[in-house]
Amino acid sequence: MTERLPLALTMGEPAGVGGDITLKAWLRREEGLPAFFVIDDPGRLISLAHHLKLDVPVHLITDPSEALDHFQDALPVLSAPLAVPNTPGTPNPTNAPLVIDSIERAVACVQNAQAAAVVTNPIAKDALYEAGFKFPGHTEFLADLAGENIKPVMMLACEKLRVVLATVHVSVRNAVEHLNADTICKVARITDRALKRDFGVSNPIIAVAGLNPHAGEGGAMGREEIDIIAPAIERLTAEGINAIGPMPPDTMFSAKALPTYDAALCMYHDQGLIPIKTLDFDGGVNITLGLPFVRTSPDHGTAFDIAGTGTASEKSLMAAMRMAARMADTRAAHKV
Amino acid sequence: MTERLPLALTMGEPAGVGGDITLKAWLRREEGLPAFFVIDDPGRLISLAHHLKLDVPVHLITDPSEALDHFQDALPVLSAPLAVPNTPGTPNPTNAPLVIDSIERAVACVQNAQAAAVVTNPIAKDALYEAGFKFPGHTEFLADLAGENIKPVMMLACEKLRVVLATVHVSVRNAVEHLNADTICKVARITDRALKRDFGVSNPIIAVAGLNPHAGEGGAMGREEIDIIAPAIERLTAEGINAIGPMPPDTMFSAKALPTYDAALCMYHDQGLIPIKTLDFDGGVNITLGLPFVRTSPDHGTAFDIAGTGTASEKSLMAAMRMAARMADTRAAHKV
Repeated sequence: MTERLPLALTMGEPAGVGGDITLKAWLRREEGLPAFFVIDDPGRLISLAHHLKLDVPVHLITDPSEALDHFQDALPVLSAPLAVPNTPGTPNPTNAPLVIDSIERAVACVQNAQAAAVVTNPIAKDALYEAGFKFPGHTEFLADLAGENIKPVMMLACEKLRVVLATVHVSVRNAVEHLNADTICKVARITDRALKRDFGVSNPIIAVAGLNPHAGEGGAMGREEIDIIAPAIERLTAEGINAIGPMPPDTMFSAKALPTYDAALCMYHDQGLIPIKTLDFDGGVNITLGLPFVRTSPDHGTAFDIAGTGTASEKSLMAAMRMAARMADTRAAHKV
Repeated sequence: MTERLPLALTMGEPAGVGGDITLKAWLRREEGLPAFFVIDDPGRLISLAHHLKLDVPVHLITDPSEALDHFQDALPVLSAPLAVPNTPGTPNPTNAPLVIDSIERAVACVQNAQAAAVVTNPIAKDALYEAGFKFPGHTEFLADLAGENIKPVMMLACEKLRVVLATVHVSVRNAVEHLNADTICKVARITDRALKRDFGVSNPIIAVAGLNPHAGEGGAMGREEIDIIAPAIERLTAEGINAIGPMPPDTMFSAKALPTYDAALCMYHDQGLIPIKTLDFDGGVNITLGLPFVRTSPDHGTAFDIAGTGTASEKSLMAAMRMAARMADTRAAHKV
């Protein structure tokens, strides 16, 4: 196997913790961290490292291919100079086009086979909207950049659990209203493919959660299991997808149950996020399934309140990098 | 401090795992288990012990006061002979009146100061309904036996987390419909009192969960936080109850967040049950707050599929017994 390409890491919102955790992660590169380069403003990283008293030399590269040669000795940076000086904690919309540009360039790097995968630092959508950004989030923007008519799926993963969601950022009331078998099937199909292609699971088992307590208890506590979820599982089974359930939501994340499936398909945001964050608050990784390239990100936001203080944990970013490298390797091997 | 009274343990559904776990728990009495007696059919316990090859001598008592003298050498049993022989896994409605009688006698024991607390083995409601039982569950029956016009609150507790619920056994759709500030306040008040009286927390903090992802994010993902939950917290605060929130549901059960409050008040069944069962599947305890006596039970059902096999874990029953004894001690000390 040839040497792995470096990961392309985006700047994210420069007023957030992205810079802090990028520097701290590089310092821990000996801990099995895959090589990466960051598309960021080298000047701001140098002064941030100085401010945080972190011994991180920066090496300016002009081409991703130089990253591997320098990674052990310095943080490789593909320059994306900010328009105005950055103040931690206070995003400046004037810099928003550079934040977007950093994401676009990272995607171009994987598309041109110059990077193994894209890892994104957290962005602040509000600051981007002022600059004309028109996507609900990172995921949809990346799907658009991928240039295909695809509907990506967000997966959250920690060591013991992978979760995908049938409904995401909507109220519980709307999640119940919007739940339908088509969406459950679409999410399950993309998840099934990704488990095979990106995680190397040859015959993946997808545990489909019920919506209601005790999975409805035969209709006594809600009919969505009978009317929507069980029929979706039947369709998936007929397609050859190993979908099981509807599972009683409260017991499916127990230590005994976790090893019995490869991903949990949850009906609403907190049904999937509560167990992930209860099991592993700092080590969770956000993964976009269904793109033509591998993309992961840390499972936290910009954390403006602690940006520039050096207290943000680099654990989730490091987990995201390790996950991206493993997935890229698996996908490459899968193609062969 | 005088010697603690024994705990009164009910038979529960005899076709369930109650007998199995009662015998197994007694065998582990040296592990700090409080003394107890069980109100059950001595003959069926003797033959079950024989069948399971468990060395559990049974000592028939006629008064709870004899339990302490014999507990170290034998399982003290207050006789409640079954009407027809019991078959593990197959409940017989003819025995249902005995199941109910066992609960009534346990309550009478605590009311007559012959027992420190009631610990109940799991029942099968369907089998009891056929015999004319008219309560939705154990909790409501116990409240009725307590002879007061009280609305009890179910708490689920493991070592790291205590949870109470604003809505319990209803569909998610109905939980959203039924959610109201009055109920949240009622549950919080009973919880606050119990944390002080039964758990010895002098100034308890109750973390009130939001309903929606990110606690609604200022109304963008649901208005229940603004319209219902925050006003309830305001009312509680005005009454001197330390209620905080609405908390984003996905992060409030993380290892970092758990030590910052004494109980989580959750809006629906799985919001509270998922974290409890994810953290500790076997060691959870079900506690009824707001009764004039202490009552706990293991946090599992009759498990008909493994009844009579000896494979059921006694861990939750043992945790329920230890919790009941600690709560009874605290309540007694509180009264002084």
